[in-house]
Amino acid sequence: MVVVRSKVLESVRQWRSVKTKTPIIGIDDGGFDRFSEEKRKVPVFGVVMKGAAYVDGIIQSQLERDDSQATKILTNMISASSHKPQIRAIFLQGVTIAGFGIIDIHHLWRMTTIPVIVVLRKYPNYQKIQSALEKVFDDNQVRWETIKRAGEPIKVQKNPQIFLQTAGISLENAFQLIKKCTVVGTIPEALRIAHFIGASRFRFLND
Amino acid sequence: MVVVRSKVLESVRQWRSVKTKTPIIGIDDGGFDRFSEEKRKVPVFGVVMKGAAYVDGIIQSQLERDDSQATKILTNMISASSHKPQIRAIFLQGVTIAGFGIIDIHHLWRMTTIPVIVVLRKYPNYQKIQSALEKVFDDNQVRWETIKRAGEPIKVQKNPQIFLQTAGISLENAFQLIKKCTVVGTIPEALRIAHFIGASRFRFLND
Repeated sequence: MVVVRSKVLESVRQWRSVKTKTPIIGIDDGGFDRFSEEKRKVPVFGVVMKGAAYVDGIIQSQLERDDSQATKILTNMISASSHKPQIRAIFLQGVTIAGFGIIDIHHLWRMTTIPVIVVLRKYPNYQKIQSALEKVFDDNQVRWETIKRAGEPIKVQKNPQIFLQTAGISLENAFQLIKKCTVVGTIPEALRIAHFIGASRFRFLND
Repeated sequence: MVVVRSKVLESVRQWRSVKTKTPIIGIDDGGFDRFSEEKRKVPVFGVVMKGAAYVDGIIQSQLERDDSQATKILTNMISASSHKPQIRAIFLQGVTIAGFGIIDIHHLWRMTTIPVIVVLRKYPNYQKIQSALEKVFDDNQVRWETIKRAGEPIKVQKNPQIFLQTAGISLENAFQLIKKCTVVGTIPEALRIAHFIGASRFRFLND
């Protein structure tokens, strides 16, 4: 994969310091049914935390499955929140959400003015993603371009492995911030909680 | 109100020590519509944490509004969880849930063998509760007796005020544990997160 670096990324300034209780938001989707024709709504949860210390609030929105408006919906969810002025970084577990909804992390950064950090535990199988997109979507080229625009995931830690993609923040600051926001394992606590909320909800989708 | 102390409560043994990362669960309900005839389901969330340090899992169940089976549903929710063997205490924000669903905390303790701690920021207005029950429920006497069975809320801290009701744990141990499980303010983090999840969900109830 060709490394894509946007001009805005190059212009990112270093943070003077990365504080322990930096307010951040971790975003993840809830479970959903891949095949149901009626149930196309997928909830998305944003957990606002002071670093890894405590939760400040939880916000929620919803997407369509494979939503082509994913970036816009996340932008609106964050912008509508009273927490927005405090939040210093947005954590994501990947650039896809609610199936093949693709998040343009540079656009999300520009629209919210909040840096975006994608935390990956393994390097994505881009070949598989591209061929899945081609099979399913008429606009597969657009989706694929958006995925590529996030840039090459960079390995910042070997054991356990962590790869990062960033927008609006240097790789170094992003990794420092992740360490401040993590209590257990390698994933920031806000992302873990967002994931647990999504997972807990799945059982009740069909009630 | 007459103080009711069950015999089991008297027989509670002191904990040898109250550890910082004691596994506990905080339970709260999600928002619901008081008046809708069709929408009578209320979600309930249990946040499993290691003390105040990090979340270990989130479980979910649901009740009817004013569910007369509240104690049984919470018992089942906890018993069905893979986290159950670890959990050392159940935190509640009151003995009512999903409207006037009444939790029999001593029964919940006996059925789960996990001590129950109710954390209140103000002394309940029992007169108001009793008269509301009388107006609405044929079985108001049963509900009222269950509320009384939780025992008198005891003030354990003056500023800010905290009152506790306990089952299966001494007041002293309960208060020590609460302090270990609280990061900000007076409410254990697991209860705060459960509350945030419930609150975030409300907007989407009618979708």
